[in-house]
Amino acid sequence: MSRDDARFMALALSLGRRGQGRCWPNPAVGCVVVREGRVVGRGWTGVGGRPHAEPQALARAGDAARGATVYVSLEPCAHHGRTPPCTEALIAAGVARVVAPVSDSDPRVSGKGFARLRSAGIEVTTGVLAEEAMRDLGGFLRRAGGGRPHLTLKLATSLDGRIATASGHSQWITGRQARHAVHAMRARHDAVMVGAGTARADDPMLTVRGQGDVARQPVRIVVSRRLDLPLMSQLAQTAREVPLWLCHGPDPDAALADAWDGIGAERIACDLTGRQLDMEAVLLALGQKGLTRIFCEGGGSLAASLLGAGLVDELVLFSAGLMIGAEGLPALGAMGLDRLDGAERFRLQELRVLGNDAMSRWIAS
Amino acid sequence: MSRDDARFMALALSLGRRGQGRCWPNPAVGCVVVREGRVVGRGWTGVGGRPHAEPQALARAGDAARGATVYVSLEPCAHHGRTPPCTEALIAAGVARVVAPVSDSDPRVSGKGFARLRSAGIEVTTGVLAEEAMRDLGGFLRRAGGGRPHLTLKLATSLDGRIATASGHSQWITGRQARHAVHAMRARHDAVMVGAGTARADDPMLTVRGQGDVARQPVRIVVSRRLDLPLMSQLAQTAREVPLWLCHGPDPDAALADAWDGIGAERIACDLTGRQLDMEAVLLALGQKGLTRIFCEGGGSLAASLLGAGLVDELVLFSAGLMIGAEGLPALGAMGLDRLDGAERFRLQELRVLGNDAMSRWIAS
Repeated sequence: MSRDDARFMALALSLGRRGQGRCWPNPAVGCVVVREGRVVGRGWTGVGGRPHAEPQALARAGDAARGATVYVSLEPCAHHGRTPPCTEALIAAGVARVVAPVSDSDPRVSGKGFARLRSAGIEVTTGVLAEEAMRDLGGFLRRAGGGRPHLTLKLATSLDGRIATASGHSQWITGRQARHAVHAMRARHDAVMVGAGTARADDPMLTVRGQGDVARQPVRIVVSRRLDLPLMSQLAQTAREVPLWLCHGPDPDAALADAWDGIGAERIACDLTGRQLDMEAVLLALGQKGLTRIFCEGGGSLAASLLGAGLVDELVLFSAGLMIGAEGLPALGAMGLDRLDGAERFRLQELRVLGNDAMSRWIAS
Repeated sequence: MSRDDARFMALALSLGRRGQGRCWPNPAVGCVVVREGRVVGRGWTGVGGRPHAEPQALARAGDAARGATVYVSLEPCAHHGRTPPCTEALIAAGVARVVAPVSDSDPRVSGKGFARLRSAGIEVTTGVLAEEAMRDLGGFLRRAGGGRPHLTLKLATSLDGRIATASGHSQWITGRQARHAVHAMRARHDAVMVGAGTARADDPMLTVRGQGDVARQPVRIVVSRRLDLPLMSQLAQTAREVPLWLCHGPDPDAALADAWDGIGAERIACDLTGRQLDMEAVLLALGQKGLTRIFCEGGGSLAASLLGAGLVDELVLFSAGLMIGAEGLPALGAMGLDRLDGAERFRLQELRVLGNDAMSRWIAS
């Protein structure tokens, strides 16, 4: 891998991330056209997944695309969907070389994009920054192959890991800058998810606010086995403006189900494991509905279910400079852990000061 | 305050910190002699508090001290103790100017050092980096004025604020680099303190290890109201090699008291507040015995007592990338807190990656 290849691929990946949270069920792809070491075109997937990144970058490059190298964060599509195949646009533009980190896992595309380009005489290089690309696009790739979306778990706690006092007082633990960062993170995910307890206790909106124009609000998801959520909540009141999906067990109360249907929420019946919702089944169901990246904001029981099932890909922890004590509400519920060897472990990725709070980001290891 | 004054005072403060943990009951002071913008002498307080920083720095400077500016992190002493007064050494060396951040609070010195220098025609500038100096020397200054030592509370927890599983399994939560940093922090304090529960559960040594030659091991302190600590512990076995002080209530079991006396531990009887040891009284008693900086390593009950009484000056948190869950042992015991407004709050001072752990340092606000 040349240094230039890594540099331009990093740029393509960062462009791709601009589309995160607004492209689903399509991947958020970035593309850079480079001619003689200079960037002559850039593009990223549009809202809702169209237009694709490659035709936008090629259009910006114009005639300069002829003989150029194109860096794209995912294998270009080769099938006729709602847009013409990107491979044909690349061939028509006369590019000399295409660099991509990973193959698409969509069976309509996988490997076919690269093969089509090669057959047209274009040099293809793969594997450049593949790990980074898997981090950004892992949710899409896994989902496209029948798996579950990427799951980020966010916790905002006191220094002793509490999210509220015993009496439930929780506003505010973290400061303005940390809360602003949470909204930016929500915007980079397809959906925001909370458990029923948090929905009842906090009456949240779960929308993205304070981030300028939001092209597409993330879906709001509440996980509630019994569907016993307050019908007078902010979520209920706004269900026709911003999608509200409720993941519940197989036998919800019929009157409650009718009420939520009437309010405009979408209900998703999921299997149980024992007496609890099977969180893997919940995530698979959400993946089948097109979600690629989910941002879970607790509470403690849902966090414990997800962690216990090994379903947390990324963990973001905001730590505020106060101490609540052992009667306080824990950020994480019971895990049934006896020895440390069995604990879910994470690798530290990023550490940042946000006002008077510490933000740490961790990746499942 | 000129930029040069701040720069050289920062150097004096950093030299002073080299003596932390090895000078008590004296302050760990640093001194820099500057002639025509160049450092010509440096010194810091020796082990056990002697020699003082100023004569060492002056000796290094030699004739270059004449007409020089001397930066010293605390008011020079003016009284004849076990060393001759530093003021006289400064006058004899013919320095032109002395810069210091703060007055000494020792009534034998306070203000008298500056007055003596001025009366000898030396220009005296005070207040330079006073806040930083108070941070480094606050324990000494408060104690010398009859107050309590500086208290640093260290916690090493999982991301959800736990220090062990429900069954007590705790080795290891943090990694090698974080544990190494803890030993370096122990070395920078006069004493290491734990509660009785931690002493029983972990059977710790509480010594400084892996830091090269340790000029003076910190005193080991166990806080145990009833003195019911295991007599077969590592602490007991080493009580004649490294000081072991036991802070207990007014009426310990006589046989236990005799046993600990025989083992070579030093007992300190402290008052109760209600049924608990009065932690402010404990710290005042430790200050009267000469300690200026205490490093508390938990456990949860002792941490809660200290925090609840507003006695924690500095908080160091090591966060390891694993999740233990709500049955785990909390880093902080019950605090009886109802609303967040009443929580002890801290200002973020430092954030650092140590291996796969995050270290954050916080100051009481």
